[in-house]
Amino acid sequence: RTPVTEDFAQGYPSDEEWHGYINNNDRVLLKTINYSSPTSAGAECIDPDCTWVEQWVHRAGPREKTYFKPEEVKAAIVTCGGLCPGLNDVIRQIVITLEIYGVKQIVGIPFGYRGFSNEELAEMPLSRKVVQNIHLSGGSLLGVSRGGPKVSDIVDSIQERGINMLFVLGGNGTHAGANAIHDECRRRRMQVAVVGVPKTIDNDIMLMDKTFGFDTAVEEAQRAINSAYIEAHSAYHGIGIVKLMGRSSGFIAMHASLASGQIDICLIPEVPFNLHGPHGVLQHLKYLLETKGSAVVCVAEGAGQDFLEKTNAKDASGNAVLGDIGVHIQQQIKKYFKEFGVTTDVKYIDPTYMIRACRANASDGILCTVLGQNAVHGAFAGFSGITVGICNTHYVYFPIPEVIAQPKVVDPNSRMWHRCLTSTGQPDFL
Amino acid sequence: RTPVTEDFAQGYPSDEEWHGYINNNDRVLLKTINYSSPTSAGAECIDPDCTWVEQWVHRAGPREKTYFKPEEVKAAIVTCGGLCPGLNDVIRQIVITLEIYGVKQIVGIPFGYRGFSNEELAEMPLSRKVVQNIHLSGGSLLGVSRGGPKVSDIVDSIQERGINMLFVLGGNGTHAGANAIHDECRRRRMQVAVVGVPKTIDNDIMLMDKTFGFDTAVEEAQRAINSAYIEAHSAYHGIGIVKLMGRSSGFIAMHASLASGQIDICLIPEVPFNLHGPHGVLQHLKYLLETKGSAVVCVAEGAGQDFLEKTNAKDASGNAVLGDIGVHIQQQIKKYFKEFGVTTDVKYIDPTYMIRACRANASDGILCTVLGQNAVHGAFAGFSGITVGICNTHYVYFPIPEVIAQPKVVDPNSRMWHRCLTSTGQPDFL
Amino acid sequence: RTPVTEDFAQGYPSDEEWHGYINNNDRVLLKTINYSSPTSAGAECIDPDCTWVEQWVHRAGPREKTYFKPEEVKAAIVTCGGLCPGLNDVIRQIVITLEIYGVKQIVGIPFGYRGFSNEELAEMPLSRKVVQNIHLSGGSLLGVSRGGPKVSDIVDSIQERGINMLFVLGGNGTHAGANAIHDECRRRRMQVAVVGVPKTIDNDIMLMDKTFGFDTAVEEAQRAINSAYIEAHSAYHGIGIVKLMGRSSGFIAMHASLASGQIDICLIPEVPFNLHGPHGVLQHLKYLLETKGSAVVCVAEGAGQDFLEKTNAKDASGNAVLGDIGVHIQQQIKKYFKEFGVTTDVKYIDPTYMIRACRANASDGILCTVLGQNAVHGAFAGFSGITVGICNTHYVYFPIPEVIAQPKVVDPNSRMWHRCLTSTGQPDFL
Amino acid sequence: RTPVTEDFAQGYPSDEEWHGYINNNDRVLLKTINYSSPTSAGAECIDPDCTWVEQWVHRAGPREKTYFKPEEVKAAIVTCGGLCPGLNDVIRQIVITLEIYGVKQIVGIPFGYRGFSNEELAEMPLSRKVVQNIHLSGGSLLGVSRGGPKVSDIVDSIQERGINMLFVLGGNGTHAGANAIHDECRRRRMQVAVVGVPKTIDNDIMLMDKTFGFDTAVEEAQRAINSAYIEAHSAYHGIGIVKLMGRSSGFIAMHASLASGQIDICLIPEVPFNLHGPHGVLQHLKYLLETKGSAVVCVAEGAGQDFLEKTNAKDASGNAVLGDIGVHIQQQIKKYFKEFGVTTDVKYIDPTYMIRACRANASDGILCTVLGQNAVHGAFAGFSGITVGICNTHYVYFPIPEVIAQPKVVDPNSRMWHRCLTSTGQPDFL
Repeated sequence: RTPVTEDFAQGYPSDEEWHGYINNNDRVLLKTINYSSPTSAGAECIDPDCTWVEQWVHRAGPREKTYFKPEEVKAAIVTCGGLCPGLNDVIRQIVITLEIYGVKQIVGIPFGYRGFSNEELAEMPLSRKVVQNIHLSGGSLLGVSRGGPKVSDIVDSIQERGINMLFVLGGNGTHAGANAIHDECRRRRMQVAVVGVPKTIDNDIMLMDKTFGFDTAVEEAQRAINSAYIEAHSAYHGIGIVKLMGRSSGFIAMHASLASGQIDICLIPEVPFNLHGPHGVLQHLKYLLETKGSAVVCVAEGAGQDFLEKTNAKDASGNAVLGDIGVHIQQQIKKYFKEFGVTTDVKYIDPTYMIRACRANASDGILCTVLGQNAVHGAFAGFSGITVGICNTHYVYFPIPEVIAQPKVVDPNSRMWHRCLTSTGQPDFL
Repeated sequence: RTPVTEDFAQGYPSDEEWHGYINNNDRVLLKTINYSSPTSAGAECIDPDCTWVEQWVHRAGPREKTYFKPEEVKAAIVTCGGLCPGLNDVIRQIVITLEIYGVKQIVGIPFGYRGFSNEELAEMPLSRKVVQNIHLSGGSLLGVSRGGPKVSDIVDSIQERGINMLFVLGGNGTHAGANAIHDECRRRRMQVAVVGVPKTIDNDIMLMDKTFGFDTAVEEAQRAINSAYIEAHSAYHGIGIVKLMGRSSGFIAMHASLASGQIDICLIPEVPFNLHGPHGVLQHLKYLLETKGSAVVCVAEGAGQDFLEKTNAKDASGNAVLGDIGVHIQQQIKKYFKEFGVTTDVKYIDPTYMIRACRANASDGILCTVLGQNAVHGAFAGFSGITVGICNTHYVYFPIPEVIAQPKVVDPNSRMWHRCLTSTGQPDFL
Repeated sequence: RTPVTEDFAQGYPSDEEWHGYINNNDRVLLKTINYSSPTSAGAECIDPDCTWVEQWVHRAGPREKTYFKPEEVKAAIVTCGGLCPGLNDVIRQIVITLEIYGVKQIVGIPFGYRGFSNEELAEMPLSRKVVQNIHLSGGSLLGVSRGGPKVSDIVDSIQERGINMLFVLGGNGTHAGANAIHDECRRRRMQVAVVGVPKTIDNDIMLMDKTFGFDTAVEEAQRAINSAYIEAHSAYHGIGIVKLMGRSSGFIAMHASLASGQIDICLIPEVPFNLHGPHGVLQHLKYLLETKGSAVVCVAEGAGQDFLEKTNAKDASGNAVLGDIGVHIQQQIKKYFKEFGVTTDVKYIDPTYMIRACRANASDGILCTVLGQNAVHGAFAGFSGITVGICNTHYVYFPIPEVIAQPKVVDPNSRMWHRCLTSTGQPDFL
Repeated sequence: RTPVTEDFAQGYPSDEEWHGYINNNDRVLLKTINYSSPTSAGAECIDPDCTWVEQWVHRAGPREKTYFKPEEVKAAIVTCGGLCPGLNDVIRQIVITLEIYGVKQIVGIPFGYRGFSNEELAEMPLSRKVVQNIHLSGGSLLGVSRGGPKVSDIVDSIQERGINMLFVLGGNGTHAGANAIHDECRRRRMQVAVVGVPKTIDNDIMLMDKTFGFDTAVEEAQRAINSAYIEAHSAYHGIGIVKLMGRSSGFIAMHASLASGQIDICLIPEVPFNLHGPHGVLQHLKYLLETKGSAVVCVAEGAGQDFLEKTNAKDASGNAVLGDIGVHIQQQIKKYFKEFGVTTDVKYIDPTYMIRACRANASDGILCTVLGQNAVHGAFAGFSGITVGICNTHYVYFPIPEVIAQPKVVDPNSRMWHRCLTSTGQPDFL
């Protein structure tokens, strides 16, 4: 009648057994297939040069031997960067799983790494009672912020507070910080388990099937896309533009377009395009107005930035305004059709904050639950400098450096992007 | 076993009986009470000078005598102006009720009054089958647009098409147009019933309890407010700003603030405020950050416009950008706190298009259904130059000129505004 | 810069001024019109015998003189009966408004009147911090239950706990209890303000325009109705049945049918109907299957109960199962069409608990906010044995006995029921 | 500037090239890993006996050579069985992709296989215009039904109508029918491509990562679970029961429980349990009421059926009532606590029809889009007797017999079930 994981909360190892980081020798093999598939018999595969990848990773989950005695653990959770649906789900599940292991001291560091140095900001005591229903709201119970103090100051603070498990929720920069904290702790011979949970709404982490918040973002984006569609179709020569998140990768825009079935043009950072000229976006919009009467454009915030920079140089204006590709396209559309003497009605929607602040949907709720459980299992097993994720449908642990080397991007030759093109019916814009 | 309204689809009157407009002699008395209540016994009333208003109006509904033979009716529906939740519900119910009366020829004029003159835009035949499920989507099946041809051209087109019932959905300008069409038809001795259905998401029509779309707008605004609240509360010194519709009246902002319970400052066109100075909004925001750590502002788009004009003069910039009070407040907040050296994190949300494009909620669905039924009852009774509405909980007909004389605004001394102040806890900003 | 209501938190009157109940001499006149309208000029009114009602009531709101010193107040809130959307909104607003008056001691009595006698159930201390976000969830923070201890025991408990303001949220039975508590307090010369807030999702309180939770229930019912519609229309000879709340009144069923536009047959307790026979519901369903291919029925839980009793007698079964009119109709439909050899596919949906447990929508959120504020204003003014409500668009206080004399029901001759019939197209079923 | 897939709408092969079914020799290798992972270095893996599986499948997608000339294609779509979110998305995408290939003749067969034989039911002509927005509603545009005529009659009808592409959406039984149709067509040497799209809301198809509708069902179930949670927590000794779909597999119940974080007890068909006795569900409920005050149970419809049969024998009642495990548990709970003299308040929610009738969420929208595209690609490539799916994150074609051999079930030793147990905190009930 004992919960599964408690079986593993036994067997406190001697200090020598503490490895403190992932030892590359004890990994297991997880064979994965590249998204480009191998061609064996048929010539039907559209990807000519696909290769096999053999991936050795640690399966995530509880371990028979645990490094920490629950009663000696002081665990801290910190959330950094911008909001992302699911932060509260992960916080909640880390707290609940720690309590199942028997941990009594659990605290939240307020407002990201900043909370380690700002003395006005008190630690927030956490328990199942506190976190019971936090997943029903978006945002982060602990608060988020960007930046923070120096690594050595953070580690000083960790030492002072007696923290020996640190759970860090954040993106690439935050993970780089977490790894630096882990390294500094090892240097000082502090036995602190530093475990990351990747938080990027853009789903742009290498090796991971998806990151939490992404699915919710794609779903919530439907609301904005449908509004743009209705505005466009209810107007004479209506054009709706929706800008979605995605600084360097267009996964949200691509998936949201595919899901909606209402997008005529999807623009992402990975696929260059021209606005003007015979193959440009504007020309295609003209064609759409003539044939369908209206059009809807979905653009990732990072799309066409080179294009904007050129304009920037000419205009000598501030970055803030001109950095907005959605506004830029809106202006170009108005200008273009004015020259033709064609009436248009352009509506621009930026739902970013309304998407980020959502609570996680069910699919992300499950993902967050498993990630949170595994983060605690990893820390108790004595891993440090790791992050949790789902890879090729399996939950795994990765050394932090492996996943932050470079962002994942949409492959313009991938099947998924081609499916998106089939769905939108858009041509190449070059 | 006959539907109620069919009882009244009898008794085609002779031409003499056609009055073509509301005769003020055949009204019924609808006693109403002013929002300022009478003081009788107690001194407890906060409004010293309230008075009784006796209102004589026509109750809306089917009439025993109908002017039109159903088989001779050609009815047209036109939707003008911007989108508003419920347009499709009204269109749908007009069509269904016309069919119950026995009308066979029902058409939609595409894209507002423009559809009367643009020869490329064909009439859209309407029937129960066509409109059955249109209320499940937002927008307007017929399309909307602003402006349009001259009144005489419209009436030429009406004559040419053989339309003798015209249902016009739109705001003040559209109703002025409808009344002009009605006058021109009378001048030409055309027996056309012109019936309006007031469409203003801002709820700013005189004498009417509420207009369709308003309730949905207030409800949908909650999503944006809650996002702003979560962004603000999850950030260090977070400030959320939500701009809501309301060019000349703050009903949406006031009701949305009251409903949410999450707004600290509500700014509307009817109540002047200072941004700067000891009683200004910025000073209060500073107080809120110091005491609560975060704040949420709800601002109607028409608020502080005088204030913006002054800034306009100084900046010599285009209207488009500077006319946005939300952006202006955001900029002023950033500048103000920068001077104090206080870190803030300001998030600005403009959910306008996502609210306008919503489908009607249940409450508006009922309102639209009854307005649509009554519009048809009114036309069949031979009324013209009227509009339908709900006044003091009763559905009524008004002559168009009565309701478009001036917009309804929030009374800063009203109980409802005081309730809003109690809810937000905000002081006077003067 | 003081919030409005604080102006009134002054002037503690002497004990002689305590009236402790509404004095009928100090009311103000609120002229109302009956739902049956007066016929003056036209013969067009379908209600022949309507009459004017002059209503003298107390306008709700803050009073210049308050009876209680805030620092001497111990306020208690109790929620009784079944769940209803908005309970948390009212609790929240009562607490917030009490704090604005300066009250420090605010407690919740857990699980209804039962909480006064069950010693295991501790008072729950309430403050703005505790209630800040409770309106974002459905249910009742304090818990609800039916029944409870004797009135004298409750008043003993009130005395023991030193409570001098009691806010009671509940239906007719609960209000009868509140009035008995008020009477017993007066008998014992205890100066306790007992103030009710009517909670009936059925909207069946006399004299009140609407009660909180009703609007949300109608809206949430759309989800069930649309499911039934889709099930019915996607099936061969599909029939969908939705049972909605309404033991003795059909307001929810009527309004939900009107709002949806998807109901073919609406059955309510106030309008008798036959299932069998040439004018019966089953015969009409057969007609609908033949002409439309499918049908959707909305039935209030209290409809056709006489009908059920007859069946009861025959079956000699328990009430629980046979009291369900939805199941009964489903069974009769299956039996009826089987006799004809007609295939049908009947789907029955009972969304009751999913509706009751919803959070309040924006419209109810506003209603709850104003009711909560006014409940506190009334108590501070020294009123007791009253309840708050909205009457003819105005917020008022009523003596409890006036509103619980009998339930409000749908008038089968009312315009609203006729509008519903026009919308469903259903005949009389007698 | 040509859409991707049109590249492949070339090269009409000679008749000899038509294979008409998947030739097992031309598959590609898709290496997969068992859910039980291989242990290499560490002893930490909890699954001792995991093995590698090498899977040879056909990657789905467009082929260079297509078998059909678009202008000679008459494609038909049929939807069978019960409703499932996403049916309209798949229909829509099949039609759109067929039009991209250039197909002009596309029809829907109404109401499942029945539509092939019922002469009253006319084919529904389909085009992009017809299907443009059908994915915004739940249900099936074409209607569904169970059962149908004999295979030979269906093939007669296919022959008569000149259909040479048949897309079949349905579950195991429907797929068995599709395979029989495929076999009969081959026997008659008819060149008809029969392509299935697996439709099972329960996600119980072997070899497939997930089936469409499942994700939406899990998400929509949250609404019911949250209602049950609120009812339970707002009541004194409240117990909420939610019955979810899952005749032979508990995937929906397990995932919905994990996602909600609000379930105390999850019961599925794959894991036996006792209601009574020292380790029974009722005993644990008693413990939960004593410690937490309330409890929420999630039960799959197929759970405890053996248990029900025993009771059946005793009661000698009809199947309809007693087959409902939710009602049975509710009754047992009431009886059990009555014996102890403990008050409880049990609320039972069955949201089945409200879940089935939902429109697909974004995640399922994408899945349906890709499945629909691939179904058409497969048919054009000349495959028949296949079904489309997603396997180990890749979209593939399977011969129908491979996937319908047996249903997929939850492995009680799997990590996912253990995660669910960690989340609910429930013990073994044996």
